[in-house]
Order: sequence, then C-alpha cells, then structure tokens
Amino acid sequence: MFEKNLQLSFLMDAYAGLLSERQQRVLDLYYNEDLSLGEIADDVGISRQGVRDSIKKAERELYFYEEHLGLVARDSAVREAGEHLLTLLGEGEAREAARTLLAVALGEDG
Amino acid sequence: MFEKNLQLSFLMDAYAGLLSERQQRVLDLYYNEDLSLGEIADDVGISRQGVRDSIKKAERELYFYEEHLGLVARDSAVREAGEHLLTLLGEGEAREAARTLLAVALGEDG
Repeated sequence: MFEKNLQLSFLMDAYAGLLSERQQRVLDLYYNEDLSLGEIADDVGISRQGVRDSIKKAERELYFYEEHLGLVARDSAVREAGEHLLTLLGEGEAREAARTLLAVALGEDG
Repeated sequence: MFEKNLQLSFLMDAYAGLLSERQQRVLDLYYNEDLSLGEIADDVGISRQGVRDSIKKAERELYFYEEHLGLVARDSAVREAGEHLLTLLGEGEAREAARTLLAVALGEDG
C-alpha cells in the first residue's frame, strides 16, 4: 500500500460510503493502488482530466464531511482514551468490557 | 420540545452539520418547535410546498447518512457498552478513564 497522503486514507476509511462507487474506485486506485491518472483513466473509461476532476471533487467532499462530523479526529481521541483506560485495568471482566466499548466506538464490532 | 419523530431528532443531532442552514432551520422549526408548514413558510420566506419539499429532501439526506455511516446506531451501542463497563468499575481512576472514553466516543468532550 503506497500512501500519497495518510490523512486522505483515514478520510476514505471514515467516509467512503458517502461517495459514489466511481469516486470510491478512483480514489482507491490513486491513493491505495498508486496508479497514475492515465492508468486510472484507462481503467475507469473516462479522460485523464476527468479522473483529476473526480479526485479533487471527492477530496473536497471528504474534507467537508470531516469538517462537519470530525469522525477521523474523534477516532484518534477514542483510541488514545481507550489505551489510557486499558493501562489502568488488569486482566478480567472490566478489561473485556473496555475492549468491547472501544471496538464499538471505533465501529469495529463487525 | 414536541417530537414528531424521535428517530429524526437523533438523526438531526448526528448529521445536522451536513445540511444547509435553511434545511437545519426548517427541520428545527418542524420537529423541535412543532410549527406548522404554513408557520414555517412565513418564517423562512418560502412557499408552504417549498417547506414540505425541503423537509422531505432533508429527511432523505439524513437517512442516507445514517445508512452509510450509522452514527446513531453506533452511539446507541456505545452507550450500552459504556453502561455495562461502568457497572463493573468501582470508584477510582479507571472509572474516570472509562467516563472520559465514553464522552469522547459520543462526541461529548466539548
């Protein structure tokens, strides 16, 4: 996984579901698969400029969502608070409950 | 506060920031202030039908966001997991850390 931009990767994880399927595919090819604009244009069947516009529009949408919902920032704070709590808990039922809360809060409960 | 629909109220809490200011105002007047369509039309300066269309469009957007992000459902699961954890913890540092985690996960940390 070659990441041109780690922040973009977090934003995609958080909000990809709000983008169109084509936007998701273009961003995935660009940021995760590290394809060039020309290669993506061939894959998706639109022009190189169309790919560039699609990426820029999708990025603007992702930043808009983060500005108004802040899920990436929240997840980061949740991880930090969760790690602190876990350092305070020995093995046992409370630790399991804390792990469950953390997974649920991060949307990792399946 | 007169709630025509409790679910809508949760959706508004979670996603209002993604709606336009006019949509937020119309929904607030309709669901929280319990004004009629005609009263809202007078307040906002659009037609009664315009108000109705605005409400329906905003509701569709809110349901779309919940379908793809599930923040209302997640918050509910977080509260449940948090309550369970707190029943296991006596007073002390771990309880405080659990409360902090819960507040952060629910976006209530200011």
